[in-house]
Amino acid sequence: AANKKLLFLPGDGIGPEVMRQVRRVIDWMDRKRKITFDVSEGLVGGAAIEAHGVPLSDATLAEALAVDAVMLGAVGGPKWDNPSDYTKRPEAGLLTLRKELGLFANLRPAVVFDALVDASTLKADVIRGLDILIVRELTGGVYFGEPRGITDIGNGERRGVNTQVYTTSEIRRVARVAFELARKRGNKLCSMEKANVMESGLLWRQEVTKLHGEEFQDVELSHMYADNGAMQLLKNPKQFDVIVTDNLFGDILSDEAAMMTGSLGMLPSASLGAPDANGHRKALYEPVHGSAPDIAGRDLANPCATLLSFAMCLRYSFNLDEDAKLIERSIQNVLGGGMRTADIMAPGMARCSTTVMGDSILREL
Amino acid sequence: AANKKLLFLPGDGIGPEVMRQVRRVIDWMDRKRKITFDVSEGLVGGAAIEAHGVPLSDATLAEALAVDAVMLGAVGGPKWDNPSDYTKRPEAGLLTLRKELGLFANLRPAVVFDALVDASTLKADVIRGLDILIVRELTGGVYFGEPRGITDIGNGERRGVNTQVYTTSEIRRVARVAFELARKRGNKLCSMEKANVMESGLLWRQEVTKLHGEEFQDVELSHMYADNGAMQLLKNPKQFDVIVTDNLFGDILSDEAAMMTGSLGMLPSASLGAPDANGHRKALYEPVHGSAPDIAGRDLANPCATLLSFAMCLRYSFNLDEDAKLIERSIQNVLGGGMRTADIMAPGMARCSTTVMGDSILREL
Ligand SMILES: CC(C)[C@H](C(=O)O)[C@@H](O)C(=O)O
Ligand SMILES: CC(C)[C@H](C(=O)O)[C@@H](O)C(=O)O
Repeated sequence: AANKKLLFLPGDGIGPEVMRQVRRVIDWMDRKRKITFDVSEGLVGGAAIEAHGVPLSDATLAEALAVDAVMLGAVGGPKWDNPSDYTKRPEAGLLTLRKELGLFANLRPAVVFDALVDASTLKADVIRGLDILIVRELTGGVYFGEPRGITDIGNGERRGVNTQVYTTSEIRRVARVAFELARKRGNKLCSMEKANVMESGLLWRQEVTKLHGEEFQDVELSHMYADNGAMQLLKNPKQFDVIVTDNLFGDILSDEAAMMTGSLGMLPSASLGAPDANGHRKALYEPVHGSAPDIAGRDLANPCATLLSFAMCLRYSFNLDEDAKLIERSIQNVLGGGMRTADIMAPGMARCSTTVMGDSILREL
Repeated sequence: AANKKLLFLPGDGIGPEVMRQVRRVIDWMDRKRKITFDVSEGLVGGAAIEAHGVPLSDATLAEALAVDAVMLGAVGGPKWDNPSDYTKRPEAGLLTLRKELGLFANLRPAVVFDALVDASTLKADVIRGLDILIVRELTGGVYFGEPRGITDIGNGERRGVNTQVYTTSEIRRVARVAFELARKRGNKLCSMEKANVMESGLLWRQEVTKLHGEEFQDVELSHMYADNGAMQLLKNPKQFDVIVTDNLFGDILSDEAAMMTGSLGMLPSASLGAPDANGHRKALYEPVHGSAPDIAGRDLANPCATLLSFAMCLRYSFNLDEDAKLIERSIQNVLGGGMRTADIMAPGMARCSTTVMGDSILREL
């Protein structure tokens, strides 16, 4: 059989150094488990702008469409923060990938690691054992809606417009993913929008309700306005199991949830497309954290989120659940042993670099 | 001189019972301070739907336009959550008031009361002494943008649309309010949007930057993506002084900040319009919390947020800073004395009803 095909897009900031640790795990799998990946590498974001003048070249996009899964580091940085041309932002590269690969379902677990309970600004009681999954719609809404842009409207005035738009099928396909995941977990789904203010949110609520009635009556469904959701997450996060929400609310709420865990450097994500005839989904895996330009290139970043993203990749794209668990357990053991990168450092623990964290995890494997 | 004119709109749920305590303070001011208000009362939200079939009658709107300030309780409830006609939601009454009165600047303080530090799910160190002010744009953005609605697009599919739109002058006027408030406080302003994804956010960033250069160079200005803002609020809330953001981000982020304080039942808000020729601004004051239908009518609600909203009303609409301070100090003293409504109850404190909290504050006055 053909080897498993992976495209590496390390991107900007700390992206390359955390992705390097994934390479090491892949080498290990090749040597020790006889599981071989064909890994190609490309540029995205600021790195691609520097090299090609665009945040994602056509060749790299073609490659992303051809492989089994994409592993991404991070994009963005102050250097590219004020582009004169809006299509020349690092972020545009990532958005194009999401859209062109049809990655409509973004899975963002917010999990508190026992060893890291104290790293959160929330009280230990509130978050100990937290394990929620946010399913964010990723290819629709205000991120991609037309019309959009800035226009002159005379008298020195300008007008900036974006369009929030969702169709029935866009809502149903992401809700279906969320319902199915809920079934494999705590069987509870909470859908969040602003149906009290936005018609697109009202349609969202109606369609989620309808799908629930048609196919998922066994799953406990609730609805919450997104502002209340932001509050309830803080007040009592453990009330949630799976949350499904749109692209923009998902952006904000998943970052809130991630920071709540205190384990931002530990959180992976998966972005999945629709299954093809063989049941295979296009997929992109990336850490929840950003490119952290302030610490880039200094061997300080926490590679765990990226390694856990690779574990998700093994599980969702290659059905290698055993190997995924192996990586997850190794990371837990290393943390249990007191090893900490700077972001999760705590009194009494051993502070280590990106590379040493990678060494330790490999040893554990 | 004519008396000061106030319109009371108690609204739904706990609205009427918390507003009753404001009445008592007004009577006290009349008797003891010889400051007299003409108070008229009207219906809004679900209460107005029941009485008139609309969430805000034309007569009530006309009255709101005629008075010096509006005091609002809360709107909404499960009874009206799924209207067949979108204009018949309780929330539509509040939105119409905001829009017709031109209340573009919504001031939402997030303050931690010393006596309530432990009520938060955040660690005491992180939030002790917190005092930030969120200025939320309130009459623009996706709340009011056109086109909007749900349309049939054939094949059983529907499409929900809302429009996020901001003009130069909408951005500048709310940013000006925020800069001016920052000058009176810690002299720091942080503006939040998603300029990396939305052109309307890019315009926002550009105009705030421009106004800063033109008129407010003495204020320290920073910019943050709203998702990062949601994280930074949790990570280190005291890094902020004043935050300015748009209608939708403001809805979410101010609720997050409010819940962080642990003092949700304590937080007031003011919504202000543009100054007229006499420098008078149209204004509406309301607590940050909602209508809490679960505890409505049971004399359990915390009236402090509404009383503090009335203090803001005295300060901003009537220039009665002394009287505002009197109310604020009285509430602090009552809390200091151990009196607590259920929402802020803690071990060792004295649990009291809405009415008894009102009694105590009046006694303290
Ligand atoms: C980098 C940016 C375009 C992106 C987004 O807004 O979706 C990021 O914040 C995320 O959450 O993946
Ligand atoms: C009740 C609702 C329309 C309102 C809003 O979304 O603005 C509320 O959440 C608020 O923040 O005042």
